[in-house]
Amino acid sequence: MSSRSIITLTTDFGLRDHYVAAMKGVVLTLAPASVLVDISHEVAPHNVSEAGYLLSGIWQYFPTDAIHVAVVDPGVGTGRKAIAVRSRHGTFVAPDNGLLYPLLVAQGAVRPDDGALVDSEGVELDNPAYHRMPVSNTFHGRDIFAPAAAHLAVGINLESLGSPIDRVLDATKHTTRITEGEIRGTVVHIDRFGNAITNISADKLPANATISTGGLTLDGVSANYQIAESSAIVGSSGLLEIAVRNGSAADTLGLRIGDEVVVRGGA
Amino acid sequence: MSSRSIITLTTDFGLRDHYVAAMKGVVLTLAPASVLVDISHEVAPHNVSEAGYLLSGIWQYFPTDAIHVAVVDPGVGTGRKAIAVRSRHGTFVAPDNGLLYPLLVAQGAVRPDDGALVDSEGVELDNPAYHRMPVSNTFHGRDIFAPAAAHLAVGINLESLGSPIDRVLDATKHTTRITEGEIRGTVVHIDRFGNAITNISADKLPANATISTGGLTLDGVSANYQIAESSAIVGSSGLLEIAVRNGSAADTLGLRIGDEVVVRGGA
Amino acid sequence: MSSRSIITLTTDFGLRDHYVAAMKGVVLTLAPASVLVDISHEVAPHNVSEAGYLLSGIWQYFPTDAIHVAVVDPGVGTGRKAIAVRSRHGTFVAPDNGLLYPLLVAQGAVRPDDGALVDSEGVELDNPAYHRMPVSNTFHGRDIFAPAAAHLAVGINLESLGSPIDRVLDATKHTTRITEGEIRGTVVHIDRFGNAITNISADKLPANATISTGGLTLDGVSANYQIAESSAIVGSSGLLEIAVRNGSAADTLGLRIGDEVVVRGGA
Repeated sequence: MSSRSIITLTTDFGLRDHYVAAMKGVVLTLAPASVLVDISHEVAPHNVSEAGYLLSGIWQYFPTDAIHVAVVDPGVGTGRKAIAVRSRHGTFVAPDNGLLYPLLVAQGAVRPDDGALVDSEGVELDNPAYHRMPVSNTFHGRDIFAPAAAHLAVGINLESLGSPIDRVLDATKHTTRITEGEIRGTVVHIDRFGNAITNISADKLPANATISTGGLTLDGVSANYQIAESSAIVGSSGLLEIAVRNGSAADTLGLRIGDEVVVRGGA
Repeated sequence: MSSRSIITLTTDFGLRDHYVAAMKGVVLTLAPASVLVDISHEVAPHNVSEAGYLLSGIWQYFPTDAIHVAVVDPGVGTGRKAIAVRSRHGTFVAPDNGLLYPLLVAQGAVRPDDGALVDSEGVELDNPAYHRMPVSNTFHGRDIFAPAAAHLAVGINLESLGSPIDRVLDATKHTTRITEGEIRGTVVHIDRFGNAITNISADKLPANATISTGGLTLDGVSANYQIAESSAIVGSSGLLEIAVRNGSAADTLGLRIGDEVVVRGGA
Repeated sequence: MSSRSIITLTTDFGLRDHYVAAMKGVVLTLAPASVLVDISHEVAPHNVSEAGYLLSGIWQYFPTDAIHVAVVDPGVGTGRKAIAVRSRHGTFVAPDNGLLYPLLVAQGAVRPDDGALVDSEGVELDNPAYHRMPVSNTFHGRDIFAPAAAHLAVGINLESLGSPIDRVLDATKHTTRITEGEIRGTVVHIDRFGNAITNISADKLPANATISTGGLTLDGVSANYQIAESSAIVGSSGLLEIAVRNGSAADTLGLRIGDEVVVRGGA
């Protein structure tokens, strides 16, 4: 573990309040040499799958000894586990509410059908020696998740932080359904430009794909944003997006998070 | 003073403009090893008491050698003092407009009745040798407050920065009034989730408290956000909050910053 | 080049998405000792001149070995050049779409009439050895601009990054027109307080100036924000601003980005 560990933060706390800063103070007190990187704090409140999507789009660009903390936690104080999982691609600290499932599946660190850890190790963060005391009922980000990341950053072993776990919560409702000649996915995020990002991977696309959503049908996947008025495009994360040239697909086409997108192979 | 000093920033400058970045450039030019941490730049414009609330919620989580800069400064260019105060809990750099009063009182570093410094030291930042020249009439954050923090970070003595002060501006209108069997406070902040945070400390609450605001009366304080539809809860900063389960108290109950909240002991 | 280089980031990516974080991951992987500073990520989408304005307001406050990356890039994937220019005041990495022109002119690093580099050096970032592969069609910030900045930060020579260039794209439409007794400029930015910032430099103002915009005419330039109801003031960047006391000039006077502002000398 580097003496100047990177710790990334993804939350739904927003930037107006001081909650993110409290987490940073806890981290820097325990691990002064940490480099903190904000991924996003503007996740829609309690939207676990959006946080998972954002984190799925950045771990590839960080060193493998980075520690990624994600706190979107509608069940705080009601019994869901707090966990940390280390894969070949990074260490991930979050509530066990499905947030980490898609990215760990994409890394091959979790088995898609049952959430079992493979080629990775995990713990429940249940060792109070590494909590900030007293633990608030409403702010485990400050009292459990930030201290866990800081302790890992200064070299505490993962297994010291709590009891071993052998699986993470499955969140299959957020994955795509692939059947003969058809992929059904959903819009998981609307980005700042109004592009509607789906959970459909480019490497799953059939030749001569037709993309449908709402009343719209698009033939083929375009090379960049400038070509057609409305287009399906492979975005920078390798996921299918619906875009409108020099405009907002969300506004123009009325697309929203959760809308179904269907891809069919060409004739 | 550590060679890698933490400097936190709280302003009402927002994140769209480049004003915060200019302050950071000034700090990093004078004190290259500083670690900058944003608390919030989304304080409502000119809302001094909201900035004080946010800073009151984070100093506990930072090392005591951290330097906290807060610039919400409606009187810039019109004669109010610029000050720095060092207590046992940190060093605080801000305009002397009441912003620092509540947190210094909470630390025991200022006497509540008259704002006199006790167990702390302070200066007016009136030594031009430590200003950035020429000093703009409109941007003391860049020209006075940021240089002061950076000079402190590299080891300049507090007393070198200007003339000693023995008190800070009192802002008692933002504190609570406690009388026999009753506490009267106000909503000082609406957080991202719509929780209405008051300035009433949990350690002041009577047994079997009844909480009233507007037409609403709540019996007792709940343990977490999941229990009742509307509830009074002790938030992570130790202050009483009004919350609505899975929703916004501000929207549902019509609560706003400045609304009065009354707590009475049970029968 | 310092071992702890400052890299600033200005984009129109917003803070909700993870695009800025992906750039930061790429930088920190290649140049782990970098200090990243956000200037703004809330530039209006595709508004190249607003990004240029923001960057024009901060380079003065950073060390001259800082590397400033600006990615507002409506032409990504369609053939515009990606460039880096080093002047006496910093190194600037951006698409060649006019973004850098005003600040390089202000520095004397570019000749106003034809965009020719003077007292500065530049390259097109066309050496694939310093790109992140594969280069996405839609995200050169991550795959070209961030790697260029990181390579410069660890000491790679500017000339290694690509082919020499001798000029940058002129963007004279964003500059002011000065004629006998009159200056015509425009509003280039509305800041958080609703102040309308023009592109007219204070050092160009005639004695006893009269400032007109829309139906409004203001006599003289005020010393600070507190004096008159509506006023023209020289802001902290040395540019003429239109302000309203304790209010928003944009809202009160209906000012918007692009509005013409005319300054005439007094009788």
